[in-house]
Amino acid sequence: MTASRRVAVIGTGLIGGSIGLCLRKSGYARVAGYDSAPEASRKAADAGAIDEAAGSLGEACAGADIVVVATPVGQIAETVRQLSSVVEPGVVVTDVGSAKGPVVQEAESVLGPGRPFVGGHPMAGTEGQGVQAARADLFEGALWILTPTDGTSPQAFGTIAALVTQLGASTLALDPAEHDRLVALVSHLPYLIATTLMEIAGREDDERVFAAAAGSFRDVTRTAGSSPGVWRDILRANRHALLAQLTTFRSGLATFGQALESEDWQGVDRCIQAARDARARLPAKAGRGPEVPVRIEVTVPDRAGILAEITTGVGELGVNIEDLWMDHTAAGGVVHIVVDGPEAASRACVRLSGLGYRCRACDEA
Amino acid sequence: MTASRRVAVIGTGLIGGSIGLCLRKSGYARVAGYDSAPEASRKAADAGAIDEAAGSLGEACAGADIVVVATPVGQIAETVRQLSSVVEPGVVVTDVGSAKGPVVQEAESVLGPGRPFVGGHPMAGTEGQGVQAARADLFEGALWILTPTDGTSPQAFGTIAALVTQLGASTLALDPAEHDRLVALVSHLPYLIATTLMEIAGREDDERVFAAAAGSFRDVTRTAGSSPGVWRDILRANRHALLAQLTTFRSGLATFGQALESEDWQGVDRCIQAARDARARLPAKAGRGPEVPVRIEVTVPDRAGILAEITTGVGELGVNIEDLWMDHTAAGGVVHIVVDGPEAASRACVRLSGLGYRCRACDEA
Repeated sequence: MTASRRVAVIGTGLIGGSIGLCLRKSGYARVAGYDSAPEASRKAADAGAIDEAAGSLGEACAGADIVVVATPVGQIAETVRQLSSVVEPGVVVTDVGSAKGPVVQEAESVLGPGRPFVGGHPMAGTEGQGVQAARADLFEGALWILTPTDGTSPQAFGTIAALVTQLGASTLALDPAEHDRLVALVSHLPYLIATTLMEIAGREDDERVFAAAAGSFRDVTRTAGSSPGVWRDILRANRHALLAQLTTFRSGLATFGQALESEDWQGVDRCIQAARDARARLPAKAGRGPEVPVRIEVTVPDRAGILAEITTGVGELGVNIEDLWMDHTAAGGVVHIVVDGPEAASRACVRLSGLGYRCRACDEA
Repeated sequence: MTASRRVAVIGTGLIGGSIGLCLRKSGYARVAGYDSAPEASRKAADAGAIDEAAGSLGEACAGADIVVVATPVGQIAETVRQLSSVVEPGVVVTDVGSAKGPVVQEAESVLGPGRPFVGGHPMAGTEGQGVQAARADLFEGALWILTPTDGTSPQAFGTIAALVTQLGASTLALDPAEHDRLVALVSHLPYLIATTLMEIAGREDDERVFAAAAGSFRDVTRTAGSSPGVWRDILRANRHALLAQLTTFRSGLATFGQALESEDWQGVDRCIQAARDARARLPAKAGRGPEVPVRIEVTVPDRAGILAEITTGVGELGVNIEDLWMDHTAAGGVVHIVVDGPEAASRACVRLSGLGYRCRACDEA
C-alpha cells in the first residue's frame, strides 16, 4: 500500500518514533525521518518507525505535507529556524514541545503565513527515552493539546487535528499562553515540588529517613527520579509560566503554614476541604469516557499471584483497570483499583467477592 | 488455648482492631477492648478483634500486662491521663500515635516510673477506617517506630518490642523528637504539599485543568483525598515539627525558584541531581530485605487481562511484586514492577519475554 500523505518527523526519539510507528502501521502516511544524530535516525529506520532516514532536514522535508518537530524542547526554536529555508509553501508544521508561547510566536514569525505552524503537545510519555521506548499506541487515549493562534487557518488546524486523531489522542485546543500556564500547574510545578522535597530529604544523611519513607513519600517524589536533562530543558522552556505557578503555590503554602502556626483549625480545615473537593474532580486518566471513575479497595494477603487473580477476575468481565496501586505498608495490603464508572465497579465487586476477596467500592477514585 | 498474656486495647478502630485480630489469631494474648463509643467495641468483638468489650477503661485494664492506646491521635493525652487512675504498677503502656514528643513527655509524667510508657508509631495503615477495615496482617513487614527515653527501662522496651515483632513489624527506635522530625518530613509535609497543590489547582474553575491532570499529578495529590478529620488531628499533634520542615521546604523552593528566575542552570542542575541521588536511596517499602529493589518496565497493549497475565507470570516464579504502577497516559502503556533484587528481576524478565512482552530491568526502582 502506498500512503498518499507524506509526513516528515524531525527528531526520531520516543515521541517522533512513536508517531512514525503509528502512522506507518495504519498506512496513513509515508514517514521520512531526520535526526541531528545520524545513528538515531538509523535506529528509527531499523525499528520500523520511519520509511527512510533522511540525510538532511531538506531531504526529510522534500514533498512532505506535514512536518512534525519532535526534537528535545530546547532545540525546537532552532530547528524551526532551519526549517524556514527548506519547507515549501503550503506545508503545515507542528511540534510536540512541553512549552508553547515563545516557540509558537517565533515559529509563526519565521515561517510566515504561507507555511502555517500549529503548536502541539501530547500529554503522553513514559519513563523511557529514545526510539527503543517508542510504541505505536503511545498516544492512544491521551490528551494532545493544540495551540492555535489568531493567525492559524482552519485548514492547517484541521490537518494537525486529523493527524492527532489518527494517532489515537483526544484534541484540546488552548491558547499558547493558557497551555503554558496549565501544564506549569499540572506537570512542571509538581515536578519542581517533588524534586525539592526529595532534595531536602536527601540532606538527611540518615538511612532511617529512607526506611521510613516508603508509602506516600514514594508516590509524591516519583518524578524526581526522571531524566534530569529532559526536565531541566522543560523547566527552562516554560520558566515564566512555572515561576508564576510557583508563586501561587508558595503563597498557598504560606497560608496553610500561617493557619497551622496560629492554630487556626478552621483555616486548616478550609484548606483540607478545598483540596478534597478539588481532587474529587480529577479524572482517572485523560481522554476517558464520561463515567465517574470508581475506586475499589480489595483486601489481600501477601503472596505471589494474588494481584494476577484479582486482575484476571476483573479483566474477564471486560472491565478495564484505569489505575491500580497498592498500600504496601504491610506484607499483605490493600489493592486499589480504579474502574470506569459505578456499573463496572459493581460487576467487579461481585466477581471479586465470589473469588473470596473482601472488597468495597468507594465513591471517589 | 488460654493465652498467658493479657493486652488491653483502648480504641478499637483500624489500628486497635488490627492489633487485636493479630494477637488473638496467634494466641499471643487475650485481648480486652474499650472504646469511648460503645458500639465500636461491640463491633470489634463481633469482628473477633477482641475477646471482650469492656464497659470502662478500668474494666479493660484489670489484669492487663500491656495497655495499648489506639485512640485517634488527638485523644491520646487525655486517655493516658484517665489511665493513670486505673492502671496497676508494673503494667507497660504504649500508644500508636503519629506524633510523639509532647505525648511521651506527658505520659511519663502522669504515669510515673512504676507504670512505664513506651511511645510507638506503626507506619502502616490504609485508606479505610474503623474495625471493618482492620486486618490481622496490617503490620506484617511494616516499620514500627518506638520512642524510648532516658527513663525507659529495657524491660518495658523489650515488652513492647516483642509485641511489635509478634505483630510482624520491624522495630526502629528513635528519640521522640527525632521521630516527630522524621515523620514530619516523610509523611506530614508531603500531605501538606499535596493538599496545597490540589487546593490551588481547584481554584481553576476549568475542567480542562482536570482533564490535563492525569498522570503524575494524580500521584502527587493522592493523599489530599484522604480523611480530613484524621489529617487535621495529625497536623495538629505534630504541628511544631511540621512547621520546622515546612520552613526547610519553603527555603528549598525559594532556592530552586531563584535559580530558575536568574537562569542559573547549574544551580537548577544541582537541585535536580541532588534529588535524583536521594531518590535512588529510597527502598521500595519499609521492612524489606537487604536486596536493592529493581524496577522492570513492561510495555503493554491496552486490553483487559494483560496485567493479570504479567503478574501471574511473575507470581508463578515466586517473585513478589513490591510495588507496581502504570503509566496510564495512553490506552496502552508501560507497567512498572518493582521486585526485590536483580536476581528476581532477571528471572521475571526472562519469563515476561517468553510471554511475548517487551521488558527491561532498570537500575533504580
